[in-house]
Amino acid sequence: MSATSGADAGAAASEGKVPRTERGRRTLRAILDAAAAEFGEKGFHEGSISGITRRAGVALGSFYTYFDSKDAVFRALVRDMSDQVRDHVAPSLRGARDQIDAERAALQAFIGFARTHKEIYRIIDEAEFVDPASFRHHYASTAERIAARLRAGAERGELRDEVSEIHAWAIMGMNVFLGLRYSVWDEESPPEAIAEVVAQLLARGIGIDR
Amino acid sequence: MSATSGADAGAAASEGKVPRTERGRRTLRAILDAAAAEFGEKGFHEGSISGITRRAGVALGSFYTYFDSKDAVFRALVRDMSDQVRDHVAPSLRGARDQIDAERAALQAFIGFARTHKEIYRIIDEAEFVDPASFRHHYASTAERIAARLRAGAERGELRDEVSEIHAWAIMGMNVFLGLRYSVWDEESPPEAIAEVVAQLLARGIGIDR
Repeated sequence: MSATSGADAGAAASEGKVPRTERGRRTLRAILDAAAAEFGEKGFHEGSISGITRRAGVALGSFYTYFDSKDAVFRALVRDMSDQVRDHVAPSLRGARDQIDAERAALQAFIGFARTHKEIYRIIDEAEFVDPASFRHHYASTAERIAARLRAGAERGELRDEVSEIHAWAIMGMNVFLGLRYSVWDEESPPEAIAEVVAQLLARGIGIDR
Repeated sequence: MSATSGADAGAAASEGKVPRTERGRRTLRAILDAAAAEFGEKGFHEGSISGITRRAGVALGSFYTYFDSKDAVFRALVRDMSDQVRDHVAPSLRGARDQIDAERAALQAFIGFARTHKEIYRIIDEAEFVDPASFRHHYASTAERIAARLRAGAERGELRDEVSEIHAWAIMGMNVFLGLRYSVWDEESPPEAIAEVVAQLLARGIGIDR
């Protein structure tokens, strides 16, 4: 991860600790990136605030300028990674020909993101135990985003009218497990090839020939 | 979970500790069921051997008759729950009209199983951290079983020839996330309705009209 990789970190700080300067936002970004590396490698319980500040190259005081605790930075990190996935996928959606092509592009972008951010699986998955509310928020908001895309596609006449929340959860589940298999476990298959298989399944399954 | 719920527990014991009597197998089954309740409720780190023996109503010595450690019983439990899912889904597959109907029945059976065994999510998901080899074995073997079903369906002319490991992982991902959403999070939707939506997606997506 790099300091330029992602989501607006400013909102991630603990209450009353939001950075007010560009330099502050860069420090906060560095702490979140270091937290991803620390928790991704060691897990929440073995990971430490001192490990994070060492990786970020910041003083312990800087950490407490922005976060109240190890729990707080983990919670912020889950939200940040969730936002990073959203922001990484968003541009590929905008360039799509239609909603099936958008879902193909979204999966391809997600697999690419997961290959360079494999720690996202450990971090989101560990949130189920460390921070269940963030875990739930991540998947609920991702599914809601997919459901909104599907409804919009149906309204444009590109998808069948019956697309629903069930389809959104099915698509999210496919994408998460294909990312696990073809990003985290091994990277042999090109992301385009995987996304194309799913696009064909969706085109026939919920698409409308035009 | 009940002592009659499932997979053959005999093979779950630590090396050299396989029960040789029916009574021994019943005790082992009771320990595994108690471990599911203990780890499902408290998680691996907070869960304890004494909590397991208390729930099972067996002496500490009985635990060590079959397992070497807390790690060993957790590892056995992951394998046992994986086998229970397989064994619970298997009968529904055998009654199916064709491979699409089989996948519909499998998802419906899985959602039903997850509603009465919600702890399976916590346990398999925590295995990613506590026992990565068992986590990987669970998903790799489940995907391989689905891939074999798809290949058989293609050979019978019920599915498109191009069905592949990618489809198997996509179907597994759908099923896992639909189980999370519609079993663990809430049980409002009937399992049949959810399975029917996926069956339609698959029928059009990878099925062949006959």
